[in-house]
Amino acid sequence: MKIGIFDSGIGGLTVFKEIEKRFPKNDYVYLGDTARLPYGIKSKKTIKNYSLKNTDFLVDRGCEIIIVACNSASSYSIPILKKRYKIPIFNVIESGVNAISNSCSKVGIIGTPSTIESESYLKLLKKNKKLKKIISESCPIFVPIIEQGLYKKKSVHFLIKDNLKKFQRDQVEALILGCTHYPLIKPIIKKILPNVTLIDSSVEVANSIGSFLSNTENIGPKVNFKREIFFTDKSKYFEEVLKVMFKNLNYKVKLVDIR
Amino acid sequence: MKIGIFDSGIGGLTVFKEIEKRFPKNDYVYLGDTARLPYGIKSKKTIKNYSLKNTDFLVDRGCEIIIVACNSASSYSIPILKKRYKIPIFNVIESGVNAISNSCSKVGIIGTPSTIESESYLKLLKKNKKLKKIISESCPIFVPIIEQGLYKKKSVHFLIKDNLKKFQRDQVEALILGCTHYPLIKPIIKKILPNVTLIDSSVEVANSIGSFLSNTENIGPKVNFKREIFFTDKSKYFEEVLKVMFKNLNYKVKLVDIR
Repeated sequence: MKIGIFDSGIGGLTVFKEIEKRFPKNDYVYLGDTARLPYGIKSKKTIKNYSLKNTDFLVDRGCEIIIVACNSASSYSIPILKKRYKIPIFNVIESGVNAISNSCSKVGIIGTPSTIESESYLKLLKKNKKLKKIISESCPIFVPIIEQGLYKKKSVHFLIKDNLKKFQRDQVEALILGCTHYPLIKPIIKKILPNVTLIDSSVEVANSIGSFLSNTENIGPKVNFKREIFFTDKSKYFEEVLKVMFKNLNYKVKLVDIR
Repeated sequence: MKIGIFDSGIGGLTVFKEIEKRFPKNDYVYLGDTARLPYGIKSKKTIKNYSLKNTDFLVDRGCEIIIVACNSASSYSIPILKKRYKIPIFNVIESGVNAISNSCSKVGIIGTPSTIESESYLKLLKKNKKLKKIISESCPIFVPIIEQGLYKKKSVHFLIKDNLKKFQRDQVEALILGCTHYPLIKPIIKKILPNVTLIDSSVEVANSIGSFLSNTENIGPKVNFKREIFFTDKSKYFEEVLKVMFKNLNYKVKLVDIR
């Protein structure tokens, strides 16, 4: 199988790494739209437009499954992508919601402004689960804190804590990490909310793909399967972020122009 | 005169507001490329490409003077813009450098990663001034701190101070605020570096334009001159940032698609 994954930038590599590790016997094409990131603060129309262009690129390269590894793109583009393409389209939002246990009564969601504003998690949670309370909070400072490695400074943790106050107060049982960057600060969030189950979209979307692939061919050691990593822009800043976030990514990044 | 100003987003409005206040008897077109911001972390090639598209748009709307109000765009695009267009092209970098007094011996520069990496200020300073020491520092956390209004929290000031340590230690006489967002935290920087002259690009580029216009026609009360503000994307996040950064911007924002 050739699996295509796209994200607004680098964060989606958390999803790629998780899926690749579990299902190495596939070809993978990863596209990070670094020339136009971040999506998380942009409008529905713009995000939809970018998502279509990214998917076109992956489909043109022969991908048979698409994974939208960006929460903002998943929030606004899933219906239009599913309408346009016949191939399976997986995304972090549906997988994240499916991971919430049915016995859970109070759930929290954190994400970028566009993900939270879209209410994509909220709508799906309300439809699928019998929850008593759903609380959400947009955390626009988390992405720069993570990309710049500032979360390693203890003195910065209060900014993370500030954004999580609601969840502490309302004692949610589970918290959806609605941005592919957030798994990197999971240990800090866990310290602030020790009794809360953290839902990590990279793990959950890998679970969904696993159920779909389901044949044993896809499990086992890697033998000559292709991995291609494309970015729409390369800068020193992105190289630094790659180092901060993914120390051991051993693939060469290729540049591609998408408009 | 019809004056066109572009920036990667909202920050350039500091330049627009300063120039419009001083020279109200002109028409103004402002373009903020909010669909593709930020430029400050992107590559030379991508920034050049975006700058050309933005200038084409302004020239197509009849602008007779172009002001590049974005430091990252100024860093990489001025030679190519001056080559392509016959009309005057002003920019924040040349104006900022011109403002450094000849008696100054130690200067600091702060900016986004791409502005600092381009060494655009450094090259121009070395060419024009007899400086003994030039120190620069990239401050990628400043933009999100300003856009999200976090600088209003005293507890966040240490992040600003951390980025300015070098300048404190080396006792620079002047500091160039090499990003259009930074004038909003001038009072905080002034407290950290009380004896340092802060060079504000919005003021300096207005001075340059002033010398160019130089005729008194352009000074005096506003009478039916046009102002047009275009953004390439509108989202709730940008509306919030507009409120945080420019409380009294009384112009309607129009949406335009540029690729």
